[in-house]
Amino acid sequence: MNIDMIRAAALRIQGHARVTPLLSSPFLDEIAGRRVLIKPECLQVTGSFKYRGGRSALSALHPDERARGVIAFSSGNHAQGVAQAAQDFGVPAVIIMPADAPVLKLENTRAMGAEVVTYDRATEDRDAIGAALADERGLTLIKPFDEPEVIAGQGTLGLELAAQTAALNVTEGEVLVPCGGGGLTSGTALALQAEAPGFRVRPVEPEGFDDVARSLDAGGIQRNDRMTGSICDSIITPAPGELTFPIMHALCGPGLAVPDADALRAMAQAFLRLKLVVEPGGAVALAAALFHAHRLDADTLVVVLSGGNVDPTVFAQALATL
Amino acid sequence: MNIDMIRAAALRIQGHARVTPLLSSPFLDEIAGRRVLIKPECLQVTGSFKYRGGRSALSALHPDERARGVIAFSSGNHAQGVAQAAQDFGVPAVIIMPADAPVLKLENTRAMGAEVVTYDRATEDRDAIGAALADERGLTLIKPFDEPEVIAGQGTLGLELAAQTAALNVTEGEVLVPCGGGGLTSGTALALQAEAPGFRVRPVEPEGFDDVARSLDAGGIQRNDRMTGSICDSIITPAPGELTFPIMHALCGPGLAVPDADALRAMAQAFLRLKLVVEPGGAVALAAALFHAHRLDADTLVVVLSGGNVDPTVFAQALATL
Repeated sequence: MNIDMIRAAALRIQGHARVTPLLSSPFLDEIAGRRVLIKPECLQVTGSFKYRGGRSALSALHPDERARGVIAFSSGNHAQGVAQAAQDFGVPAVIIMPADAPVLKLENTRAMGAEVVTYDRATEDRDAIGAALADERGLTLIKPFDEPEVIAGQGTLGLELAAQTAALNVTEGEVLVPCGGGGLTSGTALALQAEAPGFRVRPVEPEGFDDVARSLDAGGIQRNDRMTGSICDSIITPAPGELTFPIMHALCGPGLAVPDADALRAMAQAFLRLKLVVEPGGAVALAAALFHAHRLDADTLVVVLSGGNVDPTVFAQALATL
Repeated sequence: MNIDMIRAAALRIQGHARVTPLLSSPFLDEIAGRRVLIKPECLQVTGSFKYRGGRSALSALHPDERARGVIAFSSGNHAQGVAQAAQDFGVPAVIIMPADAPVLKLENTRAMGAEVVTYDRATEDRDAIGAALADERGLTLIKPFDEPEVIAGQGTLGLELAAQTAALNVTEGEVLVPCGGGGLTSGTALALQAEAPGFRVRPVEPEGFDDVARSLDAGGIQRNDRMTGSICDSIITPAPGELTFPIMHALCGPGLAVPDADALRAMAQAFLRLKLVVEPGGAVALAAALFHAHRLDADTLVVVLSGGNVDPTVFAQALATL
């Protein structure tokens, strides 16, 4: 992984992925007690940053390989990012999802032209089903984070941040990034190291699922005990990736963890002050900025809102905190 | 009013008002049966397009006049636009609001540094209170729409649209604009006439409050029978303005009107597909695009979402339509 791969990815996704704006609100500055700049990836194509990585990965494939199609395991944002990128290229996408995934996510992914293959979590082996399909049809697996061209795609967010903060004459600060497997965090850190080295990336996770924070502290990969029990489902992964962890270890940290209740309160502030719809996992960095100020050092915080794919009932819970 | 005033306003507000992005969603295209481009002014400073006009008007004042302060009558988006612009310039703003205005609006306007003066709707004369204060302190009245520099400020949205559609090689279509007194509608139409004449602006109003549509049909100013009874309160005005109507008559129409229920359904689609928070009045143009397709002609619709200042309880009503 290097900055040239991110720059190349930026050229490949240009005109397809959106350059999301850099927003702010005096009300948020007031709560945080410092300047807060917001990078709203909920406004990205498919409603999350995952389209950057999906588009980057598909555009990096040899045209013959791409034409045979791609496959991904995901019930969430990665599925939509890959499905939309495949539809853009007019190539087949197979998305493997648990049969009990929310109906809306199944429908959205199908609406993006993907073939959704479901499996029973209790009785079937997801990887075996995927491997058989990939072999049979010659599909290329697009991994959600531990894949160089995916990391490069997510890193394009860091290039945008470098340019957008420079335009405001802001050259240093902490960049708070919602962190699952670390694709966005590591890609953004690599881009900023090259183009805006005054910024430090700090991954933010849900409390109880802080595998990245613990891995950074320990200097080696640590795993989560469990995979369920937080509303921040979009950023819960078993452990940081083999590719992403060394980058994060070199460039990022320390990590932060916030309780679900703070993610909901942050969603409410995004509603009120930014007019943005943010999913719980996408709001953890804003929660850290607004409600955990004592754990932050910089005068300027850049907050990534990583996605906005949230069910109305969960959003209503966030509104109820107001 | 002319295009040069709009261009001058654009230079004055540059770096203060945001250039809002132009968004889209294949899901919305599908519902509308044609291409839909979204101009989200809910992302503007203060959460509505009104900051453009407020900033334009204040920046056009002579510095001595501006230093004495400004006054506005509004309980809504115009109040916040003027208050924020005054705070930016470090000059006093007095906002006259009914004593029974929502607490959140009173608080927000005060938080922007304005002095809020309340009056009793039943027993006090708003205009007399305002005139006395203006005289006493030498304040300049900033009218909400029938004021050239306010229209010029709102028209900067049209300049942005012209550039953003040109970048997509889109040169014709219908531009649907939520319409109250007509400041945004007339300013946008003037800008597009000069810079993108293939577009036609069509004002959209709440059903039962379609004074602009009726005025355009009749060729002369018609009034609304009443001022309450729609959730789209932010765009309900007694009648089109003396300055705005002739411009709209020359350049815009026919008008469209949509029921409140469709505004709520459009808010729900903005939540689901754009990850944006839109107020009912700000969603009427999207409602027309999505649910009144038979009354539209163009292959491309540009939809202005004019604001996002909505109470959580009303937003929850919109979510409940999903």
